[in-house]
Amino acid sequence: MPEMRKNLLTDNWVIMAPERAKRPHSHISLDVGHLHAEHHHECHFCYGNEHETPEEVLAYGRKTNIANSPGWELRVVSNRFPAVDMEKQFSENFIQPLEVSSYAEGRAEVIIETPHHSKNMAFYNLNEMERVLNAYKERYIAISQEKHIKYVIIFKNYGKKAGASISHPHSQIIGIPIIPPVVKQELSLAKKYYKDKKKCIYCDMINRQLMEKSRVVLENEEFICFMPYAARSPFETWILPKFHSDSFEFMDNLQIKKLAEILKAVLYKIHEATDNAPYNYFIHTSPVKTDTAEYYHWHVELVPRTTTHAGFELGTGIYINISTPEENAKLLKSIKLS
Amino acid sequence: MPEMRKNLLTDNWVIMAPERAKRPHSHISLDVGHLHAEHHHECHFCYGNEHETPEEVLAYGRKTNIANSPGWELRVVSNRFPAVDMEKQFSENFIQPLEVSSYAEGRAEVIIETPHHSKNMAFYNLNEMERVLNAYKERYIAISQEKHIKYVIIFKNYGKKAGASISHPHSQIIGIPIIPPVVKQELSLAKKYYKDKKKCIYCDMINRQLMEKSRVVLENEEFICFMPYAARSPFETWILPKFHSDSFEFMDNLQIKKLAEILKAVLYKIHEATDNAPYNYFIHTSPVKTDTAEYYHWHVELVPRTTTHAGFELGTGIYINISTPEENAKLLKSIKLS
Repeated sequence: MPEMRKNLLTDNWVIMAPERAKRPHSHISLDVGHLHAEHHHECHFCYGNEHETPEEVLAYGRKTNIANSPGWELRVVSNRFPAVDMEKQFSENFIQPLEVSSYAEGRAEVIIETPHHSKNMAFYNLNEMERVLNAYKERYIAISQEKHIKYVIIFKNYGKKAGASISHPHSQIIGIPIIPPVVKQELSLAKKYYKDKKKCIYCDMINRQLMEKSRVVLENEEFICFMPYAARSPFETWILPKFHSDSFEFMDNLQIKKLAEILKAVLYKIHEATDNAPYNYFIHTSPVKTDTAEYYHWHVELVPRTTTHAGFELGTGIYINISTPEENAKLLKSIKLS
Repeated sequence: MPEMRKNLLTDNWVIMAPERAKRPHSHISLDVGHLHAEHHHECHFCYGNEHETPEEVLAYGRKTNIANSPGWELRVVSNRFPAVDMEKQFSENFIQPLEVSSYAEGRAEVIIETPHHSKNMAFYNLNEMERVLNAYKERYIAISQEKHIKYVIIFKNYGKKAGASISHPHSQIIGIPIIPPVVKQELSLAKKYYKDKKKCIYCDMINRQLMEKSRVVLENEEFICFMPYAARSPFETWILPKFHSDSFEFMDNLQIKKLAEILKAVLYKIHEATDNAPYNYFIHTSPVKTDTAEYYHWHVELVPRTTTHAGFELGTGIYINISTPEENAKLLKSIKLS
């Protein structure tokens, strides 16, 4: 049974998912003999192996009507080894005076971004990138409408050292029955700032970055990409809509196109600057059915994993960054887009 | 200049330490030809290379009076690539409306635990382990008495994947001018519990673990070692004094001996269970000159790095543990001490 437990000393939740220990770790490289092959017969996410995953909940680009068959351009399936599921309901119970537990309710899906086994997101074309973002939005809306779901997090783990267990390009989307502590903290500080100044702190930060420029990597009509002033690790990069908006899912088609453009460009630059470093990114957006419209501002946080957070960071929550966002931004800016 | 910056969106500090990018990464293995050699001429922490480190602030076991010469059994030196230093004072300044910065004041030292280049802490004898803990206490007391220091964190990074940049056995101790957010949260929840129940939440937790037993790995007269109910990752293990005490540095000699005994035993068990996995441990104790005597309880948190926290954990602050503390504790208990 998927279980969540609360640490009463820190108020943080942990999802206990021992079934996930059984999930296959598949980092299949196409060797020299396969250099021109795009699909791998052993990879569960490749063409021809659609029956190896749970049934798809979404597919783009297939010319036939046959679900779970090859020919798709993007495919979304339930996670086969989910940390959470919808069988039972979330309910915070003191099973002992000091032991708080719940069924780990939620919805976990995998977005198989492309049929190409070895394609790197940093080299997607604009269509491919837009397709991924459209799938994010479509599945975000579907999951956020499910009963009991309070937050939906979209994230990508790229590379083994960033926690990816499968090398075929994919992202994940997980709906959970609580507002996560990291988001709660952002909401509470943004709300306080709004109360004090009647302004969105993220909008103010964007204006400051545009004025100061030294940490801005890229911008277009709709989005800005910069390194935060207090970046926690080398090449930590954020992407924010320039227009005020608390919710990712309100993006229209043009905005999705513009986000695709900037995400593609920054991933390419980071790929070149860090020699293909592993990374994680995630989207912070408003919790489901919560009115944060005035004070919150959705954004993407991209965290390359070039260094290891160690005992100091774990024990204190203070990060040591062995670079500065200004020098990182300067390097990224100098990299020409191909 | 070592700088600290505050993230106003989360209230967390980051130490910017680009100098640390220049520190040497030295994972020198003694090869077969050197199997019986204990020292390595290229390692800065080995006998004969004492001049490669800053001057020692403490040494145990040397038979001569010549500081910074071989013959020591344990040696403490300033960190040659410190993230913080004492040259200027901490002071939180708004250098721009949204940019909070300070000089990164503090004291960073390295405890070279043994002259033996390849010795694993899991195989230290009791004397060696006691020596390390005595050095922790002695340097803790010295650093905590320095001006402006509000918190002193002692930690160990073992193995490259746990962030160790040098393989010669060592721990670190860092004094900083703020109370770290992770500790603040523990203090605030423990204080609330004490206010409600007039009891220490950690003492209650120890009693519960002793009653329930399924997560207790080891105990002796003075200490208990268990896996927390909401363990964040496989084999996360805590060691706490059974007697109520908020401050690590109040340990007497007998208690140090008893802590050495239990730390040595649990490290050995984890070494065997995880096939020598990298790990971090750190000591959470009361902030300097802060009265937490009634409600706080110092402890060691030991975090083997057998899995990678990825996008979900970074984005939410919720952990997915692919094992349970009960199954981990059962395995550790089954491992006989050599």
